[in-house]
Amino acid sequence: MLKLKRVPIDTQREYVAFLSRDCAVYRAEGFKALAKIEVMADGKHVLATLNVVENGLIVGPDELGLSLQAFASMGLPEGAEVSIRQASPPESLEAVRAKIRGQTLEPQDYKAIIEDVAAHRYSQMELAAFLVSLAGFMTTGEVLALTRAMAGTGTRLSWPDPVVVDKHCVGGLPGNRTSMIVVPIVAAHGLPIPKSSSRAITSPSGTADTMEVLANVDIPLPRLREIVGAERGCLVWGGHMNLAPADDVLISVERPLNVDTPEQMVASILAKKAAAGSTHLLIDIPVGPTAKVRNQTEAIRLRKLFEFVGGAMGMQMVVIMSDGSQPIGHGIGPALEARDVMQVLRRDPAAPQDLREKSLELAGLLIDFDPKVKGGQGYAIAREILDSGRALTAMERIIAAQGPSHVPSALGKFTEEIPAPRAGTVSSIDCYRIARIARLAGAPMDKGSGLDLFKRVGDRVEAGETLYRIHAANKADFAFATALARENNGFGLD
Amino acid sequence: MLKLKRVPIDTQREYVAFLSRDCAVYRAEGFKALAKIEVMADGKHVLATLNVVENGLIVGPDELGLSLQAFASMGLPEGAEVSIRQASPPESLEAVRAKIRGQTLEPQDYKAIIEDVAAHRYSQMELAAFLVSLAGFMTTGEVLALTRAMAGTGTRLSWPDPVVVDKHCVGGLPGNRTSMIVVPIVAAHGLPIPKSSSRAITSPSGTADTMEVLANVDIPLPRLREIVGAERGCLVWGGHMNLAPADDVLISVERPLNVDTPEQMVASILAKKAAAGSTHLLIDIPVGPTAKVRNQTEAIRLRKLFEFVGGAMGMQMVVIMSDGSQPIGHGIGPALEARDVMQVLRRDPAAPQDLREKSLELAGLLIDFDPKVKGGQGYAIAREILDSGRALTAMERIIAAQGPSHVPSALGKFTEEIPAPRAGTVSSIDCYRIARIARLAGAPMDKGSGLDLFKRVGDRVEAGETLYRIHAANKADFAFATALARENNGFGLD
Repeated sequence: MLKLKRVPIDTQREYVAFLSRDCAVYRAEGFKALAKIEVMADGKHVLATLNVVENGLIVGPDELGLSLQAFASMGLPEGAEVSIRQASPPESLEAVRAKIRGQTLEPQDYKAIIEDVAAHRYSQMELAAFLVSLAGFMTTGEVLALTRAMAGTGTRLSWPDPVVVDKHCVGGLPGNRTSMIVVPIVAAHGLPIPKSSSRAITSPSGTADTMEVLANVDIPLPRLREIVGAERGCLVWGGHMNLAPADDVLISVERPLNVDTPEQMVASILAKKAAAGSTHLLIDIPVGPTAKVRNQTEAIRLRKLFEFVGGAMGMQMVVIMSDGSQPIGHGIGPALEARDVMQVLRRDPAAPQDLREKSLELAGLLIDFDPKVKGGQGYAIAREILDSGRALTAMERIIAAQGPSHVPSALGKFTEEIPAPRAGTVSSIDCYRIARIARLAGAPMDKGSGLDLFKRVGDRVEAGETLYRIHAANKADFAFATALARENNGFGLD
Repeated sequence: MLKLKRVPIDTQREYVAFLSRDCAVYRAEGFKALAKIEVMADGKHVLATLNVVENGLIVGPDELGLSLQAFASMGLPEGAEVSIRQASPPESLEAVRAKIRGQTLEPQDYKAIIEDVAAHRYSQMELAAFLVSLAGFMTTGEVLALTRAMAGTGTRLSWPDPVVVDKHCVGGLPGNRTSMIVVPIVAAHGLPIPKSSSRAITSPSGTADTMEVLANVDIPLPRLREIVGAERGCLVWGGHMNLAPADDVLISVERPLNVDTPEQMVASILAKKAAAGSTHLLIDIPVGPTAKVRNQTEAIRLRKLFEFVGGAMGMQMVVIMSDGSQPIGHGIGPALEARDVMQVLRRDPAAPQDLREKSLELAGLLIDFDPKVKGGQGYAIAREILDSGRALTAMERIIAAQGPSHVPSALGKFTEEIPAPRAGTVSSIDCYRIARIARLAGAPMDKGSGLDLFKRVGDRVEAGETLYRIHAANKADFAFATALARENNGFGLD
């Protein structure tokens, strides 16, 4: 038996175990060649990748160390007695190998794989192998099987209402914070819209990051149910809700690899929405040369896949393709986007009209899901709710229900205005580059960092006129962001 | 600037850096999302995956820790001042993504990828993504480009002789230690055969492991040249020779994933042989239901790929398919195999005849490469060399030249005889299972552990008669191996 020790290393989703090379009980060498070991005590067990350590600094010869997340998952105090053994690789890897050889897998194969993924039985390299094998080809039936399997792990929410609506944007457009306007409009209309969002992973802000500027977004499930019961809507972070947790594990490899196929995107989004208990779902696919979906052909293929899989999962689907040629709104980054959102809700004349228009369209389509609404009246209802101030009231009630924000959100004090190098008409804005500059400036970590856009496609600019302002909270980040903007500011001029 | 610290964690081929969450200079959080950082000082730099640590135990707030291998690669003392920055992912990953999307890559793409792989710029998940994308499909032109790229990194040996022969077995047959008989025969004939081998990764013994029982196998390159000059042959470990080092990095992911396509096998083997300066190469493909290559169709496809790529690389290729239906020789494990080899060389009546026969065939084919030998005379020459004792003398000279063995090799003192459960005729021996039992018994780490086979396919056995004996040096390993053998001993009886 070895004594358990907490090793304060954050290894994210990959559990790591540490064994001394001089380990008295087991010969560390015998375990070395095998990637994974099983740590057991009292009927509890975790799988972890073994790292061998050289001296007593990290673990002594009679100790077994676990990285932070693995230690937490084990749930035992330091010093508890544990035993270890070589872990057999998960059996479902055989199905992954069959997929690598080009076979079509059965639903039970996906179920077995996804259960092992959710239980952290796959190493990062095994996850990568699975993802890339799927990128080779998947039948639509396989996409459905994968989605069902992912929705079947973790929490499954259900709601008392027959119609529970949600919206999702496939992403790639900076500043596209329509959810924070759509949710109060739809909630004010009376349809339940329990919106949970992710934080940004590769973008300058996710809906949860921006909402966090205005309110607490980390809400326990029982309280969430109360809020949705009373207010019909919420805008919370989904991270602790354990919806389709296998998806989060897969994303942890998909993102650094930057492998994002339509099939994986559809399975990932629909699994989360099905687990969240949505019955009616609106998917927004922005299409543009620098957005995630680059042309109509890709967008139509994606739309059909969403419709097939979502329909087979029992959801009513509306999938729209929208203008993805440039960012939406003025602000890029949590605090600047929150400012835009509140300007729209307050009917401030300075509010970005593109954000208002797009939000009204989406809210209208969601309200059209209401059986009591006459076909095609959704947009007019949405506009009436926004213009009457009822959407603002609904947002204020949601903010009050979720509780106050806990994060500082003053705009970054280091600022730089990026000028047009010559006179002309703005012909394009590179969404990808704009997002990268905003991230380097510190978004979403520093809520007040990001970009404030002064010009849109079609605007006339004079030489030296400001295209956008960079805000940063940190001097080093500021230098990185301004350097990148000076190298290429992302704006095309005719 | 941060102070460099050596963190005594063995992270094998993946370099890991450790930064305190409270790091005074950089904000650890800003680096967290990105997998890789670049650590720089004095023009030196390494790429490493960042782990964030919680308190001062592993690194203090002004320190940057590197795992053992990364620290060694950095080559600076502890306390040296280093700076860090977010590392851009290797540009060649774009080509990997193109391959994932199903494109055919150009030779310059493979060159760029393999250079990044050899320089440790790929994470394990990126390596897995590359390997699996190749498994989707590769044209024969791509296999050639990959082989050329791999042979082009690292050391390239050249020899003064116009004909430099080598042999390689694609593996999967326990006990198949023909090289240690073939090399002294061919060397005695006078053809240069500088044989470098790997240690076992998933098998109970590699040629280097078995030769190490008889002689030192870790020979510096200048001495190796002297030995080959004087003796015409050697049997050394290739691990320090830096031949096609990208191959070793790829194997470190290929093995745990157990993804082994014909294309990767051909590229891996031929890159190593081309880098080692071979001009004439014999490839042995054992075919059998539990060997690596399972049927004739697979074997023929593999043979053609070897012939095409090897030929295009400028090597004379002979590719044979051999009987892979059961282990070769009696012993499985380094010391037991070395005993078999020496029995054959000494013409001991107890010597395994199958090992002798197969070795003579292979040696004959290699001697047939000699322009001075009349076509088809190789086998007879090989047999004459073996039977006259000249092969034994050649082996003794090679052993003397390489120097004495440094490892203990007494047979494991824990033994168990595995009996036939009933009378019958041995109809099959499961190579995979036999290898697994031998590994559990401690081979190749404990030289004296492994199996000693008493029966072959076709042999008649009585109930209770011994099929094989397990040897183990360690009590726990012994228990694992005997338990596995009792569950299923790997022998089929008619």
